[in-house]
Amino acid sequence: MLGIFTKEDVFFSLFRKSAQNVHDAAKLLMDLLTNFTDVANRAHQIHNLEHQGDEFTHQILEYLAKTFITPLDREDIHKVATRLDDIIDQMSTAANRLSLYQVKTIPSDARALGEVLVTATALLIQAFDGLNNKKKFAEVTNCCVQIHTQENEGDRLMQHALAELFTASNPDPVEIIKWKDIFQILEKATDRCEDVADAMQSIVVKHG
Amino acid sequence: MLGIFTKEDVFFSLFRKSAQNVHDAAKLLMDLLTNFTDVANRAHQIHNLEHQGDEFTHQILEYLAKTFITPLDREDIHKVATRLDDIIDQMSTAANRLSLYQVKTIPSDARALGEVLVTATALLIQAFDGLNNKKKFAEVTNCCVQIHTQENEGDRLMQHALAELFTASNPDPVEIIKWKDIFQILEKATDRCEDVADAMQSIVVKHG
Amino acid sequence: MLGIFTKEDVFFSLFRKSAQNVHDAAKLLMDLLTNFTDVANRAHQIHNLEHQGDEFTHQILEYLAKTFITPLDREDIHKVATRLDDIIDQMSTAANRLSLYQVKTIPSDARALGEVLVTATALLIQAFDGLNNKKKFAEVTNCCVQIHTQENEGDRLMQHALAELFTASNPDPVEIIKWKDIFQILEKATDRCEDVADAMQSIVVKHG
Repeated sequence: MLGIFTKEDVFFSLFRKSAQNVHDAAKLLMDLLTNFTDVANRAHQIHNLEHQGDEFTHQILEYLAKTFITPLDREDIHKVATRLDDIIDQMSTAANRLSLYQVKTIPSDARALGEVLVTATALLIQAFDGLNNKKKFAEVTNCCVQIHTQENEGDRLMQHALAELFTASNPDPVEIIKWKDIFQILEKATDRCEDVADAMQSIVVKHG
Repeated sequence: MLGIFTKEDVFFSLFRKSAQNVHDAAKLLMDLLTNFTDVANRAHQIHNLEHQGDEFTHQILEYLAKTFITPLDREDIHKVATRLDDIIDQMSTAANRLSLYQVKTIPSDARALGEVLVTATALLIQAFDGLNNKKKFAEVTNCCVQIHTQENEGDRLMQHALAELFTASNPDPVEIIKWKDIFQILEKATDRCEDVADAMQSIVVKHG
Repeated sequence: MLGIFTKEDVFFSLFRKSAQNVHDAAKLLMDLLTNFTDVANRAHQIHNLEHQGDEFTHQILEYLAKTFITPLDREDIHKVATRLDDIIDQMSTAANRLSLYQVKTIPSDARALGEVLVTATALLIQAFDGLNNKKKFAEVTNCCVQIHTQENEGDRLMQHALAELFTASNPDPVEIIKWKDIFQILEKATDRCEDVADAMQSIVVKHG
């Protein structure tokens, strides 16, 4: 056992699956933002991954409730599980809103936020893999730093998009309502990536 | 002692009172949505129940702080108490917004969301009662499943309502702002019911 | 050692610095709301204090992760640190929105909410100082009660402001969107002050 977990640790295995599921959803969302057709169906696909993610979260929390000695602090397990779930919830909500609001075209800032989410969730997977090998703890930390950078970029993109919406020469209130909502949901997804990174960083500090 | 609590357990007694208070507020809110008159006064009645709920939450958390050995995990007690409080806070805010925004008529989806809250909070009471008798743990689980179903229905209603607001032939931005806000608050109240159900489910798993 | 902490306790010292930083940000925000010029630069100054606050939070949580025996319950340390951070985040976001939305004039309710934040954050500092001396625990409680009063006042101001926005004779939807957002952010900052006060009250109950 080089890392925190034994090779077949249930928590590690479920975290890893959940992170992959979150990343898959980010890629579907990015595809939708890039090629904006068949919106309702493709939002529904993301919704299905969200349900799959609920199942992983449920399994983690149920296993946590039944397990007396855990490889990580209970609060860290809880935080990682629920925040991974929050990421995919926000992405699914964003896709759903694109469909509900009958959005016609996607602003470039929204696509850029989609890219941030693809990058940040790939870094989450990389960081999880590093948790299983103490020699890779520096790599985990490096991934977490990069996720922070992505979150900052997400924030910058949202602010740029909001400024554009409100300072248009003839602002359309309904468009503002729609896109302010969608941009804030996308940005919140990047915040939740940062929360997972913070929890992983805390795990590395405790076990380093 | 057949259940988790002794008969006079302070936590159980306060949880039960708080859940009843939440359910009473849900019924007042439903009455208001059904017979939409005297709005400011009746919103204030719901606000008074919210204050009563604050008092229960305060008593639970103070007793938790003073109690060394608790019948449930501290984190579960904390979660149940604060999430019950969140439900009534959201319902009180919804009633307040109906008054502040000088809403004229209530859409049918809002009444349906009110019904969801009445049903879900009745199920919470039933689930709490089951916690006190291990023979009824299956019933607790069944209530929690039904609360999830109600939460899904709340989500569906909110999405239907949002779609209607935005796809009206001549959408009124001020109406959209008002009702998007109110629908999201009502839906958040159903989410918090689900959180309490999740905490109860976790208690049943740990003590089953 | 008259209080909970030893004189050089790291947690106490960092809490105290973080609370002072939050109060400094509240004063800058109030200055901006009173003398509304050079908005982007002054919003950026508040943003810089937010970053300083992140650093304190990070130090507290890292020290918590490394420390086996803590002077307070771990959950209380965590709550105080993160909620202090939330206060300054909300204030920084409010300042940022004033700039992004190219706001022209400040309504009096917004200035009054700024005053509430200055008062509540000064009370937080006073309460922290009292934590270090059991003879001053009654003073801590008194400060917490006053912070609750401030939060109620913040809520009242926000409701008054929302009612005014929506009941104007000819409501401007874009103005409603901007100011509903800003007022809710300011009010949320007062809620987070109350959360810190609740955590301090819980500490006093446990150690009294």
